Amino acid sequence: MGENSFILKGDLICSISRDELSLQPESFLVCIDGRSRGVFREIPEAFQGLPFRDFSGQMIIPGLCDLHTHAPQYAFRGLGMDLPLLDWLDTYAFPEEMRYSDLDYADRAYSQFVDALVKSPTTRVSIFATLHVPATVLLMEKLEASGLKGYVGKVSMDRSSPDYYREETAEDALSAMIGWLRSSRLQFRNFQPIITPRFTPSCTDDLMEMLGLAARETGARVQSHLSESPEEVEWVRSLCPRAGHYIDTYLQRGMLDPDRPSIMAHSVYSDEYERRIMRENNVFAAHCPQCNMNIASGMAPVRRWLDEGLQAGLGTDVAGGATLSLFRTMMEAKQVSSMVWRYQDHSLKPLTFEEVFYLATAGGGAFFGKTGSFQPGFELDALVLDETGLPSPRKLSLRERIERFAFLSGEQCVSHKFVSGRQLF
Amino acid sequence: MGENSFILKGDLICSISRDELSLQPESFLVCIDGRSRGVFREIPEAFQGLPFRDFSGQMIIPGLCDLHTHAPQYAFRGLGMDLPLLDWLDTYAFPEEMRYSDLDYADRAYSQFVDALVKSPTTRVSIFATLHVPATVLLMEKLEASGLKGYVGKVSMDRSSPDYYREETAEDALSAMIGWLRSSRLQFRNFQPIITPRFTPSCTDDLMEMLGLAARETGARVQSHLSESPEEVEWVRSLCPRAGHYIDTYLQRGMLDPDRPSIMAHSVYSDEYERRIMRENNVFAAHCPQCNMNIASGMAPVRRWLDEGLQAGLGTDVAGGATLSLFRTMMEAKQVSSMVWRYQDHSLKPLTFEEVFYLATAGGGAFFGKTGSFQPGFELDALVLDETGLPSPRKLSLRERIERFAFLSGEQCVSHKFVSGRQLF
Repeated sequence: MGENSFILKGDLICSISRDELSLQPESFLVCIDGRSRGVFREIPEAFQGLPFRDFSGQMIIPGLCDLHTHAPQYAFRGLGMDLPLLDWLDTYAFPEEMRYSDLDYADRAYSQFVDALVKSPTTRVSIFATLHVPATVLLMEKLEASGLKGYVGKVSMDRSSPDYYREETAEDALSAMIGWLRSSRLQFRNFQPIITPRFTPSCTDDLMEMLGLAARETGARVQSHLSESPEEVEWVRSLCPRAGHYIDTYLQRGMLDPDRPSIMAHSVYSDEYERRIMRENNVFAAHCPQCNMNIASGMAPVRRWLDEGLQAGLGTDVAGGATLSLFRTMMEAKQVSSMVWRYQDHSLKPLTFEEVFYLATAGGGAFFGKTGSFQPGFELDALVLDETGLPSPRKLSLRERIERFAFLSGEQCVSHKFVSGRQLF
Repeated sequence: MGENSFILKGDLICSISRDELSLQPESFLVCIDGRSRGVFREIPEAFQGLPFRDFSGQMIIPGLCDLHTHAPQYAFRGLGMDLPLLDWLDTYAFPEEMRYSDLDYADRAYSQFVDALVKSPTTRVSIFATLHVPATVLLMEKLEASGLKGYVGKVSMDRSSPDYYREETAEDALSAMIGWLRSSRLQFRNFQPIITPRFTPSCTDDLMEMLGLAARETGARVQSHLSESPEEVEWVRSLCPRAGHYIDTYLQRGMLDPDRPSIMAHSVYSDEYERRIMRENNVFAAHCPQCNMNIASGMAPVRRWLDEGLQAGLGTDVAGGATLSLFRTMMEAKQVSSMVWRYQDHSLKPLTFEEVFYLATAGGGAFFGKTGSFQPGFELDALVLDETGLPSPRKLSLRERIERFAFLSGEQCVSHKFVSGRQLF
């Protein structure tokens, strides 16, 4: 047994299913070679000699899994949330992302992003970078060194954005992507490249076709945006008149594949057809409620997704979202689901705490493999939580403690963090 | 000039109007006897000898004004947000508030509440307590000692709630209220009693009538709830068939008076008539967007209020809201306004940062007198902000710094706090 074998003692919490929590106070979590062997009331005989960390009185939960965020936009989080999506991209996102052609700027900005991500409750993440290869490699180097795990996408985009922030031809875009994909696969272990057409309006049919082919040939995963705002959906309809639905612009170009999980962010306006295509093609929906409210996109009917069995998780979506804290996203997912119930469809019950906790852990975690849970065999990503800032005048149950902690906590509320059994702090 | 006379140097920001900010970097704020004499580029000759505090490089803004929160519910903030309003009251709020018949519990719980409120960005606040006089007096003692300022209401309620948490008769309720009102007016200076019928379903017509009379006779202000959820509005309609609108149940009993500002929390479903009655009667609308989303009440059309000239401010509404941070409420007010624009009425443009900042400072501040601004003559409530946790890879303008700070900050982000020129920390 290697250095990633040990036992943690604490109040252990994880999802058993979409709507049930395992709540095991004063229990033992056994980690062998970076993977969980399960949670026990007493240390089993076979594991008696392992190193032991006592976090008695503290809650320990699986690391949170962020299915969608934009690293280069971290620099303007909290700013420019006064325009709807398409104007927001032109006015704030593209000018900021363009700065990453300057490696000095990228170095400063990505250092701040990775520092904040390490301190945050996130352990697994799927990230959009910019279209620049050198800056994207720099970001991956910093992430690799951090001990976090996940995917990074050099963004591909050859139309619609301003000249200063667009790849000139589909061939240029493809060749930059392929070169980066091959070399970063060799260079990195914790972070893998993911093919990232920004969204349909940013990619010509030619580029989308080539990216689809590259996905099939390399087996690389794919992430993009889908049906985020009504204006965007309308724009896609006019750009791609032969696609009946927005998702067809990905499907028809070979971007989706049942054998390779992919991520589509938002799906706020995905109808029954789009959701069926997603289910049939192993597509995870990344629900980003804060971004959807901040830039006035809308409110996704997540209860419907869950009822239909769509795979889903949460995304912070910086900088349409202002925070890296998936705890806050949990609360916003609950808020949005309540407003969907109130205004759109009274049959869609608001999400419960169990459900938003599941989305942020095992739900999104499934994209990254066996993560997001303490079940035996799962990679051991764990957060030891710091409750010192949250006094209570009365004794709380473990169920009350975790709900309250999640709904009241921001970005820095973790006292110790483990990813695949490796301690980050 | 007394001890509350001094000069603060820093980057000074306050609202000039509903949609314009005064942004004065490296300037001087002169405080004489607890009131602002204005903001200057250089220290005027007449004030040269005053004590001087140098906060160069830090932003200084007016204290934030919370128009609506429930002190006894602070103990369960972050919990029990899984039911709509009326069920939520029976299941969570009333059982918790009942605990305050126990003064030991009240002492523990209110100490935690007041500690948190002092550390928060709030300087002025209007609070609901419970129906218990001794616990309410204890809360007022703690608040008085804290240096914060505002109003506290012993809640009046003689119907609809469970036996264990209700006043037996209207006469009992009135006599408890009057005794408390008279003695606390003498005992406290920074916090004044405010007449607080919980909401129409909690008060018989007799009690409401007596409270209205008491308000007129004592000149005390009034606060309550109004048109928060559709089920509540419907309930009021059935309880008070002679009232055409919910607000008539207050108006007809003499609770509203153009000469005495009052607060109605929520007004999510207030129509044109209700909003007109509010405007004509000096009623402030307390917008509580987080609570309205958390317990599935709805989304208030604040843009419409502002266009019509309704006086309004923000409320944290703990524990339907989970946070005491009005910075977070600013962001949620913006989010809700964006969703109102998207789903309810495209003519109601989302609130700008200037507008949510105004609501949290001068807008709500007007309820408390001349507060919420650094204009000459205003009471000097000021927050020195701690930006150290918010690095940026590039230089930000002062306008960018305050927007980002507001939208990214939680409950503890203030390094120094002044109320009427008195330094709390």
